[in-house]
Amino acid sequence: MKIGIVQQRCSTHRSESIASSEDGIRKAAAKGAKLVILPELHASQYFCQTENPDFFDLAETIPGPSTEYFGKLAKELKIVIVISIFERRASGLYHNTAVVLEKTGKIAGKYRKMHIPDDPGYYEKYYFAPGDLGFNPIDTSVGRLGVMVCWDQWYPEAARLMALAGADMLIYPTAIGWDPSVDKAEKQRQLDSWITIQRSHAIANGLPVISVNRVGFEPSPVGKKGHGIDFWGNSFIAGQQGEILAMAGTGKEVIITDVDLGRTEKVRRNWPFLRDRRIDCFSDLSRRFRK
Amino acid sequence: MKIGIVQQRCSTHRSESIASSEDGIRKAAAKGAKLVILPELHASQYFCQTENPDFFDLAETIPGPSTEYFGKLAKELKIVIVISIFERRASGLYHNTAVVLEKTGKIAGKYRKMHIPDDPGYYEKYYFAPGDLGFNPIDTSVGRLGVMVCWDQWYPEAARLMALAGADMLIYPTAIGWDPSVDKAEKQRQLDSWITIQRSHAIANGLPVISVNRVGFEPSPVGKKGHGIDFWGNSFIAGQQGEILAMAGTGKEVIITDVDLGRTEKVRRNWPFLRDRRIDCFSDLSRRFRK
Repeated sequence: MKIGIVQQRCSTHRSESIASSEDGIRKAAAKGAKLVILPELHASQYFCQTENPDFFDLAETIPGPSTEYFGKLAKELKIVIVISIFERRASGLYHNTAVVLEKTGKIAGKYRKMHIPDDPGYYEKYYFAPGDLGFNPIDTSVGRLGVMVCWDQWYPEAARLMALAGADMLIYPTAIGWDPSVDKAEKQRQLDSWITIQRSHAIANGLPVISVNRVGFEPSPVGKKGHGIDFWGNSFIAGQQGEILAMAGTGKEVIITDVDLGRTEKVRRNWPFLRDRRIDCFSDLSRRFRK
Repeated sequence: MKIGIVQQRCSTHRSESIASSEDGIRKAAAKGAKLVILPELHASQYFCQTENPDFFDLAETIPGPSTEYFGKLAKELKIVIVISIFERRASGLYHNTAVVLEKTGKIAGKYRKMHIPDDPGYYEKYYFAPGDLGFNPIDTSVGRLGVMVCWDQWYPEAARLMALAGADMLIYPTAIGWDPSVDKAEKQRQLDSWITIQRSHAIANGLPVISVNRVGFEPSPVGKKGHGIDFWGNSFIAGQQGEILAMAGTGKEVIITDVDLGRTEKVRRNWPFLRDRRIDCFSDLSRRFRK
């Protein structure tokens, strides 16, 4: 199956961001992609660089403008699209939500980001309530999609739960980048660790992993008091052994790659990790710490 | 702290294997290592290539000859040593067990391999009962050691449980290699995935990871009916961001590396993964599958 990923810049103007996403989706579809994935919160610049109540105005409902817009596009192109939305669920209740649009244009399902980060420049706990839909893959015409979002990608537990629920692949819309003030060696370690941890989910679970990041420098909304973020791109698709099938650079890029979902059976037969999990001894995984 | 790893060949003659281990330990200690780790089941060639009841003769008790021998060495050199033993616990009850010897020569603790593999050439389920000591680190004068064994290295759950119990580092004595009949690209994928999954445990938990493999081709005990195993070495030490601090090649090698355990605090502050685990939603990790 051909999978397309749209590594894009995001603009302070919603219409520009949407146009960039649509352009990428159309390119991917034209090259035969049956599933296309956008980066996290692609409709706007990454507003979580600061805590500002005005930014809640960026949120929208599900269904709403984005699901309608990209739903129409999915139907027109006869493809499945994964979009990412700043979801307004109720007054004072917002989520960071991925929505899967079926090729009929209908909503196949949604996933609300479960792990919410909060560190300097990524003040997400202010904007997003932690997801309450659990780690459940979304069934579509192109397979059972284990869609998660960004910070979730650091948690092997999340990937495993998706795999145990029968996911055919793991998908991470992402917005991650460098603090420009950090030295080069640390930047490299951060990028490497981000790639490595996600490849490891492919390996541990015998599933393809698709990670889609944005690119471009976005200045801090608070001006010179903030460093801004240099979003590092490097979106990639890994196969069931964690092998890189395709990887973008640090610029705008649309990638289409053939992913053989049938390899999961072969890879899991060769190294049958799921068989031997010591589930009799895993209950402490539900503890914060064991001390 | 300086950590030493002994990547060695193993012989069909126990005395040769022991001599090789001792030689490596002495070299590492001479270069200042305070902790030295041997590969899995280092006293013999990898007998699990076939199922043969005679091989149970290789097993020994704990305490027993190996703990006595390496205990004396630990005391003489004033270092902590991690050894790996085919443990005879009772008639018909054997384990694949790592033992940590304190610099006093005493046994600091043991870990019985929890995840037991079984696939062509690695018939471990025949020889070893699954461990019943859980995932509990071993306290020593050089830190709390998260010692596991080989196949455990593929399980993020195991690494996490050690981290949650306050392990200062994760340690994997290992015996893994290539089936010589496999093509080059597959060999590379296997090696890459082995390195990647272990680096990912460092990343997910903000802990150093030390993995020690054996080297050399060992023919199948059943002759030409078996392919034999080409043990791939590549023992390594990774830092808290999964960065490779040192890595061996495919030959006999002793490596000593400085590992800064204090970096764990810094790395975990920067990306505080432990803070955000969705422990309210992890109970299904104790299920075999969710379908």
